Amino acid sequence: MKYRLLIAYDGTRYQGWQRQAQAPTVQGTIEGVLEKVTREAVTLIGSGRTDAGVHAWGQVAHFHTATALSQERLAKALQALLPDDIVLRDLTEAPPDFHARFGSRRKTYDYYVWNGAWPVPFFRGYSWWVRSPLDRCLMADGLAGLLGERDFSAFQTSGSRAAHAIRTMFQAGLVASPRGWLRLRFQADGFLRHMVRNLVGGIVRVGQGRWSLEEWRAVIESRDRSRAGEMAPAQGLFLRKVIY
Amino acid sequence: MKYRLLIAYDGTRYQGWQRQAQAPTVQGTIEGVLEKVTREAVTLIGSGRTDAGVHAWGQVAHFHTATALSQERLAKALQALLPDDIVLRDLTEAPPDFHARFGSRRKTYDYYVWNGAWPVPFFRGYSWWVRSPLDRCLMADGLAGLLGERDFSAFQTSGSRAAHAIRTMFQAGLVASPRGWLRLRFQADGFLRHMVRNLVGGIVRVGQGRWSLEEWRAVIESRDRSRAGEMAPAQGLFLRKVIY
Repeated sequence: MKYRLLIAYDGTRYQGWQRQAQAPTVQGTIEGVLEKVTREAVTLIGSGRTDAGVHAWGQVAHFHTATALSQERLAKALQALLPDDIVLRDLTEAPPDFHARFGSRRKTYDYYVWNGAWPVPFFRGYSWWVRSPLDRCLMADGLAGLLGERDFSAFQTSGSRAAHAIRTMFQAGLVASPRGWLRLRFQADGFLRHMVRNLVGGIVRVGQGRWSLEEWRAVIESRDRSRAGEMAPAQGLFLRKVIY
Repeated sequence: MKYRLLIAYDGTRYQGWQRQAQAPTVQGTIEGVLEKVTREAVTLIGSGRTDAGVHAWGQVAHFHTATALSQERLAKALQALLPDDIVLRDLTEAPPDFHARFGSRRKTYDYYVWNGAWPVPFFRGYSWWVRSPLDRCLMADGLAGLLGERDFSAFQTSGSRAAHAIRTMFQAGLVASPRGWLRLRFQADGFLRHMVRNLVGGIVRVGQGRWSLEEWRAVIESRDRSRAGEMAPAQGLFLRKVIY
C-alpha cells in the first residue's frame, strides 16, 4: 500500500527535512514514528528538502507499507505519536504511480519579513526582522520581473544538484500589512537550492534602495551567483503548498 | 536615578515574571543583566506578574541605579545583553514618584484562540487551539456582559493576594478573522490572579454552546469560583499594554 501524507511542521528544532544520523530532522522523526507504528523499515519520500529552520504549512510525502492497520488507525497513531511541532494534516491512499518528489508540478513558498521598529520576540522564529524602511512598490516591481521562464543561476547556491537552472515562475509578489508585515509569495515549477532565500535577500536590497531596479534586473540576467546579495535567513521561509 | 522600561517578551522559556531562585524568570533575567551592566544590586519592579508561559508586548517596570552610564549607553548595553526572547522597547528616565506597580491605572490583555481544523505548529506557543466550532456572536454578547464595575470573584484563582475582587472592565470584546483566528481583548483597572484565563475558558464554553448566555451571566453573578469552567492555557495570553 502506498500512502500520501500532508504535513505541517515548525522547523525551529530540526536540521531540515533530510534524514541525518546524528541530528534531528523532520524526515527522520516521521520515519521513526512510522517504523514504530508499522513495525517495518520505512522510507519516506518528500516533495523536496527544506533547510534547517525552514517551516512547512504543506509538505507532501509518500511511503510504502504492508501494515494491516486501516488508514484511519494509521492516521490516529501518527497524530498521537508525532511531536507537537510536526502535524499530520492528512493521510490518504495514493495511486501506485504517485511520487511525492518526481510528480510535483509546482511549489509555493512564502517568506515573511517583519519591517517594524523593534524585533517582536514572538515573531523571531518565523520571520526576518528588517529594520530599515522598505519601498514596497519597488519590491513588487522587482518581483514581477521574475515571472515567466528564465535561468535562475544567479540565485542558486553552489553545490546544487540541479542539472540546469531554468525554471518557470508563476507567482512572485508581496502582500503588505499597514503594521509592517510583508509576505512574499513565490510559485514555480521547481526551486533551486536556497533560491527563495537568495531572491528575498536581493529584493530586500531593492526595497532598501541599495539596488536600483536596473541593478536588480542586471543581477537576474547575469546568471552569476557572485552578483547576488546575501541570503535571507531560514526562519522566515515556509513551504506553503505542493501541487501535483 | 529612576528608570522606566518598556519590555516585550516571549514567555515560552520562562517560569513567569517573578524572580525565583532555581528557575529562569523574566524579572530574574533582566535583573541579572542590569546588575552586570551597572555593577550594582538591582531590584526591578514590574507592573505585575505574568504566569509561566504568558507573553508580553508591553510590560512596564522600573528600577533605581547610581550608575554613571548615560541613558543611551544603558539602553544599548541592555539591548546587547538581553536574550533574544526579551526585548527592550524603550528606556526612559522616570519621575521620582513613578511606580510601575502602584501607579498602573489600566491594563490591557489579549488572548489568541486558533479555531481552525488542525493545530498549526507555528501558532502552538502563542494561542489556544480550540477545534470545535465557536459561535462568535454569542461570545461577543457574553463578553459585553463583563463591562463596568463588578465583583469578579468567580474568575479568581484561590490564593490571590487581592483584598477584594471588585474591578472595572473598560473593554471586553473580540475580533475574528475569516480564517479562524480570534483575538479577545480585555482592559480593566486591574486583574485578579488567572482572571483573564478564567474569563477566556468561560467564554469559550459559551461559544461552544456548553453554556447558554443565561448560564454565563449566572456564573458572573455567582462570585463563586467553583462555578467557573476550566482555565484557558497560558500560552495564548499576552500582556498588551499598561496605562499610567
